[in-house]
Amino acid sequence: MASLPRAAATAAIAVGSYIIGANYPSLHENLAPSFLKSAKMATAVVPADRHQIVGVEAPVKPTDPEPWTSPSRAGQIMRFGWPGFDNLRTYEDFVLSYDRRTKTAHWVIEHLTPDRMTYDPSVDRSKCAFRPDESIHEYFRSTNEDYFRSGYDRGHLAPAGNHRKTQNAIDQTFYLTNMSPQVGKGFNRDKWNDLEKHVRKLARKNINVYICTGPLYIPKKEADNNLYVKYKVIGPRQVAVPTHFFKVALVEYEKDKYSLDSYLLPNAVIPDETPISQFLVPLDEIERAAGFLIFDKVPKSQIKIINGKKLGFW
Amino acid sequence: MASLPRAAATAAIAVGSYIIGANYPSLHENLAPSFLKSAKMATAVVPADRHQIVGVEAPVKPTDPEPWTSPSRAGQIMRFGWPGFDNLRTYEDFVLSYDRRTKTAHWVIEHLTPDRMTYDPSVDRSKCAFRPDESIHEYFRSTNEDYFRSGYDRGHLAPAGNHRKTQNAIDQTFYLTNMSPQVGKGFNRDKWNDLEKHVRKLARKNINVYICTGPLYIPKKEADNNLYVKYKVIGPRQVAVPTHFFKVALVEYEKDKYSLDSYLLPNAVIPDETPISQFLVPLDEIERAAGFLIFDKVPKSQIKIINGKKLGFW
Repeated sequence: MASLPRAAATAAIAVGSYIIGANYPSLHENLAPSFLKSAKMATAVVPADRHQIVGVEAPVKPTDPEPWTSPSRAGQIMRFGWPGFDNLRTYEDFVLSYDRRTKTAHWVIEHLTPDRMTYDPSVDRSKCAFRPDESIHEYFRSTNEDYFRSGYDRGHLAPAGNHRKTQNAIDQTFYLTNMSPQVGKGFNRDKWNDLEKHVRKLARKNINVYICTGPLYIPKKEADNNLYVKYKVIGPRQVAVPTHFFKVALVEYEKDKYSLDSYLLPNAVIPDETPISQFLVPLDEIERAAGFLIFDKVPKSQIKIINGKKLGFW
Repeated sequence: MASLPRAAATAAIAVGSYIIGANYPSLHENLAPSFLKSAKMATAVVPADRHQIVGVEAPVKPTDPEPWTSPSRAGQIMRFGWPGFDNLRTYEDFVLSYDRRTKTAHWVIEHLTPDRMTYDPSVDRSKCAFRPDESIHEYFRSTNEDYFRSGYDRGHLAPAGNHRKTQNAIDQTFYLTNMSPQVGKGFNRDKWNDLEKHVRKLARKNINVYICTGPLYIPKKEADNNLYVKYKVIGPRQVAVPTHFFKVALVEYEKDKYSLDSYLLPNAVIPDETPISQFLVPLDEIERAAGFLIFDKVPKSQIKIINGKKLGFW
């Protein structure tokens, strides 16, 4: 959060500003968004005992968990473009844009590498708790109450299993901003989980894997021959139950050579025997429905494989 | 568009950046968003004949229509806060945030005064044409084709009748970004039009009137006792047909004294005899459904009248 990505100067300026803009309501209400606090610490309010005296090493532990001691990975994670700038949250190991109308995310982006997939034995998933992100204005913040007895799982968008490098990183995947109401049995705990495991396998074997995940609200033809978008909303905050979820994986399998897989799954019970490859769709189908572009900065000439098909010369 | 509002420096930086950010796809696609062109003109590409020689007056006509000669009114229009920063378009006389998922606006904000309500006789509404805003990426841009034979009007959010100061200002209200599919007879041409006329009346009699207008997608209880959001989408771009529209008018009736009226109307035939006062609702009902705050920067102590009711001391 504290530092801006250097690679994408234009985007970075926009992002910095948006963080200020997007959080104004919280400031106004005198809430304390946690990352704004860290931002302040990084710039002005450095505790006195951290000040370095020239020539004397300050007593900073390398494992210091204070956010201002470790620069944000946002620049790395967002290497191939920002799908949008609405209500950004740059957590330790993933970046999210929150949709205050549906009370769930627009999108979540992660960056995985073989190194980042190594399990830190001190990290304990059982210590994690689903919790609201207090930095979202209370009108628009989803809460555990919204999911209670709804019949839907609090489904992770950035999976907990992708972020086991630090306790803080895995903890943050349990923010309700990173959850969407998902059908539990037959989807979240089954086919969707298979897809997440497939992506982790890719991440263990390749240089870099970038993943964009999010909910969709896709229209359906009704008896009157017209198309309608229809979705349930749950709880007092009326959290939207997406009709579909997408996951796009951009894999750097050799330096500057990429493959791109775009999955679109219905938020419904899916038979176990259905292979995940059956859910591959053209990327623009997801983009048009979502209202944003995904990984639009990756040079087109470097994408060599799309949805498992090798591209010829062009 | 060209210059940034001075009054709201933080917001202005955010806006400037967002304009760059939000339009990256267009640049990327080598389209030429018109306001980015003007932005360039304002900073670097000032035509040679505009350069002032010290002590010699440059031949700039006061009515010069080039955007870079007249600073943006965005600072004035947005005096009481930005509801969001998603895909901003700051047109000559109104500011709009575009929702690429629904292919219509999130919100439109206008600022009216008695002076701005004076009719310029050279302005000709019949010269205006509904047209797509080419600065929106083609995936997300609504077009006249989307509305063709849909049965819905291309309903103005910022009404043409509020922007008759210049031909350019009224022309820009015809961008399809400023349109939403509205029921024609009984709504757009009737009750909604009554509301617009009511606001114009307010604007002729008061110091300042600020108006925020937009579409909503409000859930409804179905037979299974659950709440569902359901709306039609029209045309090849699947433009959303909102279930409701809101209009919030903040009226400065004496210096630093405000009244606030919040209207919520269904996008449906409304009987002529229904008074518009019947559609007054608490502001937060609109805000929660919309996913943003409206006029949140107006000091609460200066709001003296809400939905026609005088507030007591507190």
